[in-house]
This record gives sequence, structure tokens and C-alpha cells, in this order.
Amino acid sequence: MKALIYHGPGRRIWEDVADPVVLDPEDAVVRVDAVTICGTDLHILKGDVPEVEAGRVLGHEAVGTVLEVGSGVRTVSPGDRVLVSCISACGRCGYCRAAAYGQCTGGGGWILGHLVDGTQAEKVRTPFADNSLHRLPPEVSDEAALLLADIMPTSYEVGVRNGRVGPGQTVAIVGAGPIGLAAIVTARLFSPASVVVVDLAPSRLEAAKRMGADVTLNASGPVEEDVRGATEGGLGVDVAIEAVGIPGTFELCTRLIRPGGRVANIGVHGRPATLHLEDLWPANATITTGLVDTSSTPMLLGMLAAHRLDVSGMVTHRFGLDEMQEAYDVFSRPEETGALKVALFRT
Amino acid sequence: MKALIYHGPGRRIWEDVADPVVLDPEDAVVRVDAVTICGTDLHILKGDVPEVEAGRVLGHEAVGTVLEVGSGVRTVSPGDRVLVSCISACGRCGYCRAAAYGQCTGGGGWILGHLVDGTQAEKVRTPFADNSLHRLPPEVSDEAALLLADIMPTSYEVGVRNGRVGPGQTVAIVGAGPIGLAAIVTARLFSPASVVVVDLAPSRLEAAKRMGADVTLNASGPVEEDVRGATEGGLGVDVAIEAVGIPGTFELCTRLIRPGGRVANIGVHGRPATLHLEDLWPANATITTGLVDTSSTPMLLGMLAAHRLDVSGMVTHRFGLDEMQEAYDVFSRPEETGALKVALFRT
Repeated sequence: MKALIYHGPGRRIWEDVADPVVLDPEDAVVRVDAVTICGTDLHILKGDVPEVEAGRVLGHEAVGTVLEVGSGVRTVSPGDRVLVSCISACGRCGYCRAAAYGQCTGGGGWILGHLVDGTQAEKVRTPFADNSLHRLPPEVSDEAALLLADIMPTSYEVGVRNGRVGPGQTVAIVGAGPIGLAAIVTARLFSPASVVVVDLAPSRLEAAKRMGADVTLNASGPVEEDVRGATEGGLGVDVAIEAVGIPGTFELCTRLIRPGGRVANIGVHGRPATLHLEDLWPANATITTGLVDTSSTPMLLGMLAAHRLDVSGMVTHRFGLDEMQEAYDVFSRPEETGALKVALFRT
Repeated sequence: MKALIYHGPGRRIWEDVADPVVLDPEDAVVRVDAVTICGTDLHILKGDVPEVEAGRVLGHEAVGTVLEVGSGVRTVSPGDRVLVSCISACGRCGYCRAAAYGQCTGGGGWILGHLVDGTQAEKVRTPFADNSLHRLPPEVSDEAALLLADIMPTSYEVGVRNGRVGPGQTVAIVGAGPIGLAAIVTARLFSPASVVVVDLAPSRLEAAKRMGADVTLNASGPVEEDVRGATEGGLGVDVAIEAVGIPGTFELCTRLIRPGGRVANIGVHGRPATLHLEDLWPANATITTGLVDTSSTPMLLGMLAAHRLDVSGMVTHRFGLDEMQEAYDVFSRPEETGALKVALFRT
């Protein structure tokens, strides 16, 4: 089959590799019908994720059709249409039993396209199939489901739920890439009073408006003053969601919150930030970080099926699966291409 | 009357000042029967809290007897024995209505010995008396009550409750001064599996043992390895409570927690810390900071009265009120004197 292979920093090739096979009784092999590329894949290609070895098939998000299952798999069968989640779960360790699947110590967690071969391929082997695949209802399209493989549950769990967004609250989202946009959509499920979105790219701020931002602010302006000025007593927002992954945007978030406010970090960081405890110690601040658990994926799928979650507008570019290299080129230059999420489909 | 006056960095004098009087209908004037000194007073004397003006009476913890009340005061009367809490509360602002009294925007919060004259005096004016004084049950001694003016609710609310200590959990407390010791006592209310306490001073580690620590570790040793080695799978503790207030101890706390763990900062910091987001982003970490609200003070008083909270051993040195200068000398050199909390009594 063909697959996108990582050959060390800066090198990726769509090339022939051996078909995956069932190696463990809990494995499934899935034919990839739709797949996307994540900002994390670009981090890997920069060499930021050194545990990814050369020769690895990248990708941790897909929708597909089950081809084969091991003898221990009970909940999916050949022919089933499934979501391949970015998180695999052994289902047995202490973390899995607490629904903290992202922290699985039994061999799961984020493994696809990281520690084992991933989804940017014609077929993928999915370990722990019972706890890692989700059967798809017919009402949900491949493209919509694809967004639930990572970004929607990530923004919901690590941003909105960790930040405890609630009715009537003020929310600032720093970064309007796919993760920030997914945070807007999932924050709105809690009826906040106001969602303010900050980014540098006018096209992304326009997308934020379309997806439900009440106020958009260009990060080149006096963001801190503007955000505070828009909140009661100038105190700051209830929740700031970091959706970029650099020290400056994290530190901005800590300055945007009111006393008693929360910073929910979603960004994938490569460097430390400065935590101004000399200002924050008396401010009843809460800061959270996290990898998604995907414990919310079934709920989000149900919301999609019921037409209560609108993810349209997130995919900006569509390709055939064999146009993988071109899709990477488009996705990795969003300033030029205007790309948010790209989707590749089996042809 | 006599009072301890701050005359700028490094200068404090026990001297004659005018008696306080009721200035506002919600004020009370309280005769000070017992008072203590806080680490925060030493910070003020170092010049770390620049909003404290020269001429200010220091102190924010006392037990006393009401002498006079303004016309708007309903819940305390002359002759009542009361706890003077470190936090004053207007009772009307949004934060007070949410029981976040420490963040009061109506003129309260931490004001005593900070923005208005404090308790290290023969008498003190207490603004917002109804929401800032607590009538004392006769079963509770002045000395025990004094510990509920600040350190017990601070350690309970900002350390134990923010850190979500719970039954069966592993807790590390970094710093075994009065705040760290109060964190041990209040953490035990939740039946943790194990409380590990870290400090540099052997005498403080002995006090920690007496007050309920299961394991004590000298901070000069390989603390991180030892703490991880004592936890399931070497993953780290569920909760780390920072009770020192310097960058190194905060950063240590972030390395002691397991994935999904919490760092509850109680320490008063004067400098920023480094937050290693490159390690923490996928670790489901929660970091909290806070000033005490004292919303737990009535509960803690009830526990004291019912003999379900043991604060004995916390006060190491006792003085007459007019020995204020000597008490400061003893309290500010704990390495030599072994002082934990000092208490001064009206003679």
C-alpha cells in the first residue's frame, strides 16, 4: 500500500510500504476512507517530537472501514464504518478506568503516527480496537466525523471543559487555527456571555466570526486593554484558552483572566514559559494543561448526528488520498493558502 | 495605645499611637487579647509589599473583645469575644456574593495591616465588622482561635481544597513552616493515603512528623526520586502543595506530580518561576494559586470546638503584648530559635 513516511526532520515521502496486518488479538486493520493532517504532524516534521522514529507512518486521525479484526475484538466487525481516534486505550490501566485514556499506561495513549504506524496511509492497524474505534452513525459524514478524531474533543476537553466555561461567562480564545475554532464551537455549547478571539491573521479572525466569536481582536493591537475593557469592572475574562503553543500567547492568557479566572492551555509547547507568580499568587488563578482523553467523543458524535454541533467551515481544502504531499504543502503554509483543516479522501 | 508601626523597609517600632475609633457605621473597635505575626509581615518589613505605607500598624490576625460598634453592625456587640480574620469582606460585591471574600472589590479583602491599620496593637478598628469578625464559642481558647485568623483557612482553602486532596490520595507538601504544617493537619481531614513533607530544617521535619506527616524528606537529598519512588508506578503524587514561595520549590512541585496531578501554590512569591510547558502540556496538570477567602473559617471553628481539629504544637513561643519587638526577633530567625508560630497575649 501507499503511506506517508517520516524520514527524519524535514523529510516525508508518500511511498510503497507493506500492508498492515493484525499482530495482536485486540487489533483491527482499517481501510482509510478519509484522513487529515494535524499541526502536531508538522511539529514531528520539524524534529520537535524526537521519539518518532524514521520510517514511521504519520497521522492519528481518520475515518475508515474495518477490514479485519483480531480474535479478541468484540465491538467492531469487518465492514463497519468507524472513526479512528487519535487516542488508543488499553481499557484496563488505572488511567483508562478513570476515563483518562490520553494518559493510558497500558500501551495506549497517543500512539498512532507517534509510537506505531499511523493513519496517513491506505490502511492502518489500530491496537486496542474495542476502546479506540468508534462506530459511526449513518447520519454523520466522513468529513464531519474526521474532525472528531482529534480537534473537537481536544478543544472541548482540554480547553472548554478544563477551563470550566459556563453559562454567562466571558471567554478569550488566543489563536484561531483549527483548535481555536473548535474551541469557539464547543464553548458555545455552554452559552457563554461572550467569546473574544485573538489572532494575527485577518482570514482566521473572519473564520472565527463565522464560527461564533462575538468579538475578534488582531493580536498586533492592544489586546490586553481591549479584552479587559470589554469585561465587567475591567477585571478580565473568566476563562482564557491558549490555542497556539508559544510562551508569549500563554503569558498573554495569564494576563487576560480576572481574579479567580482560569487559563486552559491546549497548545503544544516546545519551550518553557515564564509564570509570573509574583502577580498570580494572590489572584486565585487556575492553570490547566492536557492531552485529550477522547472521553467526550461519543457525546460529540451524538451531537453531530442530532445536528446540534456544526463543524462546517473547518475543512478548507479537499484532496485525493494520493495527493498527500500536496495536501501537506497546502496545510503547512496557512498564511498563503488560508488552510484550516485539509481532508483527503479515498478515490 | 501602643502599636507596632512600620516605618519603611527594615524599621518597626512598638510605640504610642492614637486609639482607633469607629469611622464608619459598619466598623467595630476590638481590644486585642491575643495576636500573632505572619511570614507576610516579614515580607512587608523587607519592602516586598510596596503598597504598605510608612506609619501603618502591622498585623492581620487576632483574637479580641469588641469594645464598640458602629450603628450598622448587627451580629457582634460590645463584650463579644471574636476572631479578627485576616480577610475583611464588604459582603455586597460580586466576589463576596460568591464567597470569594479574599478578592472583595468593595473595599475589603486583605486590608488589615496592609491598607488600613492592623492588629499588632492594643486595639484595632475592623471595617465591615459583620462579615469580618467571627464570634468565638467558649470551648475554643484564644491561642487555638488565633491560628484560624489566617494560617489554618489559608492552608485548607488554598492548599488542600484547591489541590483537591481526597481519600486515598498521595500528597507532597513542600515547606514545613506554619503554613506547611497547617496543610498537613487540614489535608488529614480528607484521609489521604500518604502525606510526604519536604523541608531543609530537621526541626521542622520533626514538627511535621508530630503533626501527621507519614514521610519526611530533607530537601538537600534526591527528593524527586524519593517522592516518585514512594508512589504507584513511580508516576508521582496526586497533589503537591507549595508552602515556601520561591521559584525553586514551585518548580519542584511541578516535577513531583503524576500525570493528571495538581500543584496548589500557597507561597507568597516575589519573583517569577519557569513553567516547563514543554513537559507539562500533555500531562493534564492543574496549577492553582490563591489568597485565602476565609469562607471555611466557621467550619474550622466548629471543628475546633468539637475537638476534631488539633492545632496544638503550632505555637512555639508565647509573649506579652508589650514584648512585640522581642517576638518579632524570635519569629524572624526560625533557624536559631526553632519558632513556628509565636503568640502574644494581653497582660
